[in-house]
Amino acid sequence: MAPHPFKTLDVNETNVARDIILSCHPDVVVDFREIFLQEPKKELMKQYLELEYASRPGQSPNSKRPPRLAKCQYDVIGKDRIPEYHESVVDLEAKKRVKHEVIGKEHHASLTLWEFQHLIEACKKSEMFQKAMAELKLPDGFELVVEPWPYGGLDLGSENNRYFQGLCFAQDMRNGNADSNFYAYPLPLIPVMDAHKKEVVRIDRLATGGKGDSLTGQTHSERIIDHCQSGEYVPEMLETRKDMKPINITQPDGPSFKVSDESLVEWQKWRFRVSFNPREGAVLHDVSYDGRSVLYRLSFSEMTVPYADPRPPFHRKQAFDFGDGGAGNCANNLALGCDCLGVIKYFDGVVIDSEGKPKVHPNVICLHEQDNGIGWKHTNWRTGRAVVTRYRELVIQFIITLANYEYVFAYKLDLAGGITTEVRATGIVSVVNIDPGKTSEYGNVVSGGVLAQNHQHIFCLRIDPAIDGHKNTVLHEESHTAPWDQTTNPNGNFYQVRKTPITRSSGHDAAPEHNRIFKITNPSKINPISGNPIAYKFAPPPTQKLLASPGSIQAQRALFAKHHVWVTKYRDDELFAAGRFTLQSQVEKGGVSDMVARNESTENEDVVVWNSFGLTHNPRVEDWPVMPCDIFQVNLRPSDFFTKNPAIDVPSTKNEASVLVGKECCAEKL
Amino acid sequence: MAPHPFKTLDVNETNVARDIILSCHPDVVVDFREIFLQEPKKELMKQYLELEYASRPGQSPNSKRPPRLAKCQYDVIGKDRIPEYHESVVDLEAKKRVKHEVIGKEHHASLTLWEFQHLIEACKKSEMFQKAMAELKLPDGFELVVEPWPYGGLDLGSENNRYFQGLCFAQDMRNGNADSNFYAYPLPLIPVMDAHKKEVVRIDRLATGGKGDSLTGQTHSERIIDHCQSGEYVPEMLETRKDMKPINITQPDGPSFKVSDESLVEWQKWRFRVSFNPREGAVLHDVSYDGRSVLYRLSFSEMTVPYADPRPPFHRKQAFDFGDGGAGNCANNLALGCDCLGVIKYFDGVVIDSEGKPKVHPNVICLHEQDNGIGWKHTNWRTGRAVVTRYRELVIQFIITLANYEYVFAYKLDLAGGITTEVRATGIVSVVNIDPGKTSEYGNVVSGGVLAQNHQHIFCLRIDPAIDGHKNTVLHEESHTAPWDQTTNPNGNFYQVRKTPITRSSGHDAAPEHNRIFKITNPSKINPISGNPIAYKFAPPPTQKLLASPGSIQAQRALFAKHHVWVTKYRDDELFAAGRFTLQSQVEKGGVSDMVARNESTENEDVVVWNSFGLTHNPRVEDWPVMPCDIFQVNLRPSDFFTKNPAIDVPSTKNEASVLVGKECCAEKL
Repeated sequence: MAPHPFKTLDVNETNVARDIILSCHPDVVVDFREIFLQEPKKELMKQYLELEYASRPGQSPNSKRPPRLAKCQYDVIGKDRIPEYHESVVDLEAKKRVKHEVIGKEHHASLTLWEFQHLIEACKKSEMFQKAMAELKLPDGFELVVEPWPYGGLDLGSENNRYFQGLCFAQDMRNGNADSNFYAYPLPLIPVMDAHKKEVVRIDRLATGGKGDSLTGQTHSERIIDHCQSGEYVPEMLETRKDMKPINITQPDGPSFKVSDESLVEWQKWRFRVSFNPREGAVLHDVSYDGRSVLYRLSFSEMTVPYADPRPPFHRKQAFDFGDGGAGNCANNLALGCDCLGVIKYFDGVVIDSEGKPKVHPNVICLHEQDNGIGWKHTNWRTGRAVVTRYRELVIQFIITLANYEYVFAYKLDLAGGITTEVRATGIVSVVNIDPGKTSEYGNVVSGGVLAQNHQHIFCLRIDPAIDGHKNTVLHEESHTAPWDQTTNPNGNFYQVRKTPITRSSGHDAAPEHNRIFKITNPSKINPISGNPIAYKFAPPPTQKLLASPGSIQAQRALFAKHHVWVTKYRDDELFAAGRFTLQSQVEKGGVSDMVARNESTENEDVVVWNSFGLTHNPRVEDWPVMPCDIFQVNLRPSDFFTKNPAIDVPSTKNEASVLVGKECCAEKL
Repeated sequence: MAPHPFKTLDVNETNVARDIILSCHPDVVVDFREIFLQEPKKELMKQYLELEYASRPGQSPNSKRPPRLAKCQYDVIGKDRIPEYHESVVDLEAKKRVKHEVIGKEHHASLTLWEFQHLIEACKKSEMFQKAMAELKLPDGFELVVEPWPYGGLDLGSENNRYFQGLCFAQDMRNGNADSNFYAYPLPLIPVMDAHKKEVVRIDRLATGGKGDSLTGQTHSERIIDHCQSGEYVPEMLETRKDMKPINITQPDGPSFKVSDESLVEWQKWRFRVSFNPREGAVLHDVSYDGRSVLYRLSFSEMTVPYADPRPPFHRKQAFDFGDGGAGNCANNLALGCDCLGVIKYFDGVVIDSEGKPKVHPNVICLHEQDNGIGWKHTNWRTGRAVVTRYRELVIQFIITLANYEYVFAYKLDLAGGITTEVRATGIVSVVNIDPGKTSEYGNVVSGGVLAQNHQHIFCLRIDPAIDGHKNTVLHEESHTAPWDQTTNPNGNFYQVRKTPITRSSGHDAAPEHNRIFKITNPSKINPISGNPIAYKFAPPPTQKLLASPGSIQAQRALFAKHHVWVTKYRDDELFAAGRFTLQSQVEKGGVSDMVARNESTENEDVVVWNSFGLTHNPRVEDWPVMPCDIFQVNLRPSDFFTKNPAIDVPSTKNEASVLVGKECCAEKL
């Protein structure tokens, strides 16, 4: 049976795609980067979905099935040994290529994990680097660790070569533990590799001064980490707490969700498909509640983490963790009972190697339901009759590791038609060496000799709505104090609610002082109770926008961070807030800023809503050695979409497994 | 053994207090309102706590124990039958009164539930009201329900009598179910009772028009609810979902917390006392982590719900749910397995009747620990070694019902030293009748003929910090783009962090565009790693402030809502953001606005921090008939208080009860 058009490309299909590409490029070396599903054009998909919904459940219609396509990204290396970056689309059923682009030199292909390995190898072979390392006196038992990073925004006027940079640390191997935390021992140099030559071409020397020291002065001693101390996090190197009793979450009758075809999920009137790709990680498709469509697609579209330390080369510490190398590529293989508690369903992804050979990336997405406290309650005080139901959520989650940092991404659907997207930031803050006894304006000292630099994390959620249909209008709604007026407001308590439709593609900001809420409406469908157009709404988290100066490379690369909310007119394949190519970019191209500049009509159209939000992170000592999760949420809620609380029919049955405490922990009440 | 000074007053003690008061007022009628613990003066308590901490665990020192006092609030009714409101403090050990105030007529005593009952009785006896009711033609089987409310802000120039108003509804009793939702059938009149005469003195007629209708015109037909429809929420009157499988939360080894003396709670390095009083509900005292003090006291200090419908008398729909009648008095008796899942410890409260006789108000506070997803994680991508721990919280929760609305209040302590206060708003929106076919600028039609009026909920959290000591300084910290400068910021990526100490009592606002964070510091204790003063921080939720016009009675009564953050100098008994007396106030007196006007030094002093936050609630149809919880949180987090992540030693043990899904819900992966 042919796979559902939204289903993740599997191992067999990936092999077919690879073979097609190889057959298109005989007699040259092809270095693959990515092969993944090329999602169907929406116009085709809409027809298919209509049929799917009209079919009997379980049936997957065959007619109107869009062609099954794969996107292939690869370098072609000709006789001159200079890689040329190509993107192709192949038709897996017809077994031929249907689109082919040679990407010009102004853009860089996303990085691969094996390119990172090249940097590590290049450092080992580089006399320049060995010489620089020899200037530092490391204690016995400490070994070098090189952590590859993207190069960041190329300085204006630089040659547009492909570079990688390596952050360097010393690892305490005296205990023989390969998980000893080497971030506790940062070294003040960054080797820079030319990726095509696979050679270290420069060593950037890092300043290690504090307040009052210049931006570039070299002030450190050669005994560079003597003033540092260990900062372990693996339990075998710590005294862990012994008094935590287990909390078990069980579902003796099984979970309430159903998964079919490794992609279709049904739970409590929700129905959607989930897929995985190496750039976005987990994506939700065709999300509907009780047979009514809500979203066509939901995904994390990009994120950037600019560092604010002005000392060169730290302005080039600015990764785009989706565009640079793919969040899906960095997805953790989740562990039962550790990452996920309860009754768990895992989904796998597929990734490839440089030969294009696929392998399963297991357990990268987890699915489970969970209790989140009280859902709704009312007590009639006259009778004492209380009715209370629980706030239950279905969680679709994936976790990515980018060198030092971790991000936990979750989509949570609730019983009352709400969709919450959540990000948790955790992992290890990025650190550099600081001279003993000094403090800095550029960050916080979190361990001896370790400065955690100030930075921001800015995420962008992409919401492709289909509020009971594909033609929607976004509006924003504010509440304002009304003027005193004997006829209309004699007691000064009235406030006005103002609605402003967004008629052209544009950027907008949060305005919590006006309670500005964005509503994605279907102007053609009116709620029969209220008379308002049906909608879903959200209040964009009013987080601080990018602090880098306008015109700086950091700011120019991340124009998506200039506004909290962007409304664009849908175009196939326009999935990335900062554009297709972020690696080493100097300016954001083809991102939301360029999209809205097209000034298209967004009124009663197929629109896309993008929400940028984040965190200005000035680290605290408690963030070391691993930071407790910082949690961010975007809450999409129905707004006159339903004719009553959709969770009013949730049963209020008592949970029989709950018990009162026993005497072992609490003396009996008198 | 004498009770701990923070412990809730028990039944016996309440009786002793009552007897003392009666002995102080022979030969008159004493109508009691409240009897509860009068907390000790902080200067005395500090000495006691020092001894307590120095004692062996489990010992409760006897020396330096402050006197055990009770606050008594009551009316004295002399021969003229006009109640005079008194507040006294009695010493329960010495068995005598130690303070006595006769409260003047400019203030009203908080209401009691039996005063509400007087209104219901007065309506039954009132010819004026019966006559007004007779003008309405209710269908057979529908019976009147009168819902007593506080009168709201007395109009300027009105006689300062004590009034209550009654919102009227018709209840469908055709099914004989006393929990049929009468809010679905609102009636357009409000009887007003003089509380001392216990007589209905006026009937306010409500407008039922829509857009274009005047503020006072009477447009409704006598068949006033024919156009309304039922809106039931009790499960026996609904078809409930049948496919929700249970989620069980169990702790086979018991919970990790320990409760002693019905007041002392210890959990994962946290140690604190919890008490209950009829005004504030649950209060936390003497909160410390790993032996270091964090907070002296934490409580919800007030809230107000102003309605924005300009048509008289709706400007007087503005309750202060803590000050008007006491949130504790309205606390729900929580049900195991319904309100609280898992292994639960309940605490009781004590309330009195008009004769001052106490009774236990059981299970008003619940305590349990719960899992909240991932706490921290890091994977060393080289070795693949992942270490992940869970985000566990201890929850102290109470729920209050105010007529139609419910609020769930929770204090949550986490493993990483964080304190989260959470409010969930649920229950039934306040509604009035609207003519058939009409819509309104003043709210949303959520059911046939039912208009849910626009309103706000504004809460105020009171944080009495003791950050490793009682002398603290509050500062706010912002992050700002730095100017381009060749020497200090050559690449435009630098941003400056600015700290501003708050040296005098004052009000401040959220400023998320500057990432404004408030830090409560101990300037005398420096973090040895970072060199910064130790602190706890929070970002005040930047919610919309009060929308009623400045100068309106609604705004004047709730000056605490003018700023998000207030910093005041500690004074004993200064617990209430809107002052001691809110019922029928015309202007806030003795609240935070008056406190800061004293312009006291707050630098390195015993300070109190107040955080006002809330929700502008323009109801949606999904809020009917009972609204899904809207959730608000204030996150207090350590900021260089610790020398590393205090949760780094949480074990990362796998939870053995977690399982993979079975085939009954999900086909096996291929």
